[in-house]
Amino acid sequence: MKVLVLNCGSSSIKYQLFNMADRHVIAKGGIEKLGMKGSFLKHKTESGQSVVFEGEILDHKAGVEYVLGVLTSQKYGCLKTLDEIDAVGHRVVHGGEYFSSSEFVTDEVIDALVKCTDLAPLHNPPNIKGIEAMEELIPGIPQVGVFDTAFHQTMDPKAYMYGIPHVLYKKYGIRRYGFHGTSHRYVSKRACDVAGLDYSKAKVISCHLGNGASIAAVDHGKSVDTSMGFTPLEGLIMGTRAGDLDVGAATFIMEKEEIGMKTLNTLLNKHSGMLGLTGISSDMREIREASLEGNEKALEALDIYCYKIKKYIGSYIAAMGGVDIVLFTGGIGEYATYVREKVCADMDFLGIELDADKNLAAYGDEGIISKEDSRVKVMVVPTDEELMIALDTEKIVAKNAKA
Amino acid sequence: MKVLVLNCGSSSIKYQLFNMADRHVIAKGGIEKLGMKGSFLKHKTESGQSVVFEGEILDHKAGVEYVLGVLTSQKYGCLKTLDEIDAVGHRVVHGGEYFSSSEFVTDEVIDALVKCTDLAPLHNPPNIKGIEAMEELIPGIPQVGVFDTAFHQTMDPKAYMYGIPHVLYKKYGIRRYGFHGTSHRYVSKRACDVAGLDYSKAKVISCHLGNGASIAAVDHGKSVDTSMGFTPLEGLIMGTRAGDLDVGAATFIMEKEEIGMKTLNTLLNKHSGMLGLTGISSDMREIREASLEGNEKALEALDIYCYKIKKYIGSYIAAMGGVDIVLFTGGIGEYATYVREKVCADMDFLGIELDADKNLAAYGDEGIISKEDSRVKVMVVPTDEELMIALDTEKIVAKNAKA
Repeated sequence: MKVLVLNCGSSSIKYQLFNMADRHVIAKGGIEKLGMKGSFLKHKTESGQSVVFEGEILDHKAGVEYVLGVLTSQKYGCLKTLDEIDAVGHRVVHGGEYFSSSEFVTDEVIDALVKCTDLAPLHNPPNIKGIEAMEELIPGIPQVGVFDTAFHQTMDPKAYMYGIPHVLYKKYGIRRYGFHGTSHRYVSKRACDVAGLDYSKAKVISCHLGNGASIAAVDHGKSVDTSMGFTPLEGLIMGTRAGDLDVGAATFIMEKEEIGMKTLNTLLNKHSGMLGLTGISSDMREIREASLEGNEKALEALDIYCYKIKKYIGSYIAAMGGVDIVLFTGGIGEYATYVREKVCADMDFLGIELDADKNLAAYGDEGIISKEDSRVKVMVVPTDEELMIALDTEKIVAKNAKA
Repeated sequence: MKVLVLNCGSSSIKYQLFNMADRHVIAKGGIEKLGMKGSFLKHKTESGQSVVFEGEILDHKAGVEYVLGVLTSQKYGCLKTLDEIDAVGHRVVHGGEYFSSSEFVTDEVIDALVKCTDLAPLHNPPNIKGIEAMEELIPGIPQVGVFDTAFHQTMDPKAYMYGIPHVLYKKYGIRRYGFHGTSHRYVSKRACDVAGLDYSKAKVISCHLGNGASIAAVDHGKSVDTSMGFTPLEGLIMGTRAGDLDVGAATFIMEKEEIGMKTLNTLLNKHSGMLGLTGISSDMREIREASLEGNEKALEALDIYCYKIKKYIGSYIAAMGGVDIVLFTGGIGEYATYVREKVCADMDFLGIELDADKNLAAYGDEGIISKEDSRVKVMVVPTDEELMIALDTEKIVAKNAKA
């Protein structure tokens, strides 16, 4: 079975084609600057050859058509005909309270996604466009929606409700949803498999640290809490996002800088976080480099970044009444050994004892990096959201075919 | 030595007169509805007699004059002349980054307080008015300012910086300040004294749960973190304040409800928290009662309330790398046995084991409520901010007299 995984953003389309027999990627790539001048498609073949196609790609339908064209092209393609694609799995950002697991796409599912548009006005519309384009181009192809929010739908009200008038939850669905669910689900399960623990009984804290970043508490295989909230702005300090912030400070900024809501949102989502604190970059590698050269703002920003993660780990240990595994994933989680070291320092009271050598050795590699006798296992688990989407798609399409 | 403690709000003045020889309160009371129709002064004598004086009290000077008049009145007073008042201690809400401890009031101190007005526009102006009124009415009387924020000035940047552009901190002082400092300082020290621990070496988590609520992490006698931030809105769920909230949710509310910053602030400070969640009351006793009658919103709100406290405790254990004492204070912290029970449930992984009987018995009383062999001591410590202000005032006036 061949599954095409699509991640349609407002100006980009990423794709990976999986052969599910051995779960490997046959081809992958992405379109950037969709609908803008200078749009292009970058394609990578199975043998690792990279090729860039420039051209005006005006909308999502044209983009998806372009992707399918490349996949079936004689020179760079890997498919003879489109019939070889058995199913398409879509990353969908917001499933609201409608979806607690991945879903076979039907008209009803699309209707529900449209209803969630209010909650993710930038993300859900392109996700929907991708699904519709695919149906137009390969009518009847089985499609599956895999939601960033779905895994966190198991949270209890005590974890997802904000301290605001109850009517605002009823009226608009204002609550904590959480994101990165597909990643947290994948790595928390994988960590248990590698560590030899029963996923259905373990307590796992999953730190997904990329340009966006969130932590999840996974108890007995279910997400019980997570740091991103109603939007992906809340929680940890990120590349350009502020994370937790006193709303009183936010309105103070609006007043003093004489800016409106939209500018505030841009400020807090695009110009804050590590970029805002350092003024250097949103890229952790550049910040690390500056800190090694003694740049004070870089040093301070790294302190702030790691301290916040440390505190979230503590809070989720309290929330679950313990923890078996703390895992790191995402670009920073997998490669920034100094972040893992700083986060796990002085945590022996909580049963967390890092093995300094193992930590340094695990540079992007899966493995356990805590001391042999550490009460809590600390792990590195590279994430693979696309594979998770492909696996969900395979499973759900098979189930649907039987039914 | 007799010390008058004043807490001047925008429409109220609270006072307590202490005899420092035995630290007891000779008289106390307060003015309500200052500057409004129906203003009155309620006075309580040492013998416990209560008396109410109605009358138009137009401003803070008239209010302070009224207080001094009652204190020296033949029928209800306790002083022959105003000369018997040796010093006045003022509760001041915001000391910004200027004050890390209580201060003898000078012109420079008042100038600095004026500079902090921007940070506490509702609170600092009446605090300053109270100081000025007192100087006018008893010229030359030694006065001391005791700041809600001062105790938290020992926080490290990693704890007080938000993930926003650094320039916003430099330009406007936007950072976490924290409040309730006088209370956290008093109870954290008192807890160590009672438990026989050395305050200068202990790790204490202080949960001040009143209508306003905050938690502080006190390490080696210094505040290292606290849940209130730039304003008292951040942190725990409170009587009417929302506590932590995704700023993305706040702007969503503004957009959907078509409200501006001011209305948003009123919504989140006055109509949210336990009141907003339950629709019943901001008073924990009424919410508890409703929950016992099976009211679902009350039950859920209590869950949310306690879960948040539990998570903060966990995060501060991680922040300090351990904890010796977790203490509860404030009206709810001292009396709501069910809150303490819920917060401390399933915390044995963190070394916290409540003794159910001791917890039930400690109804407003100081004492240890954890099991004998609990790794962490859990305590109830009634707060007394006024006494702390009086003690600071006594000490600083004495030091100043010597100098």
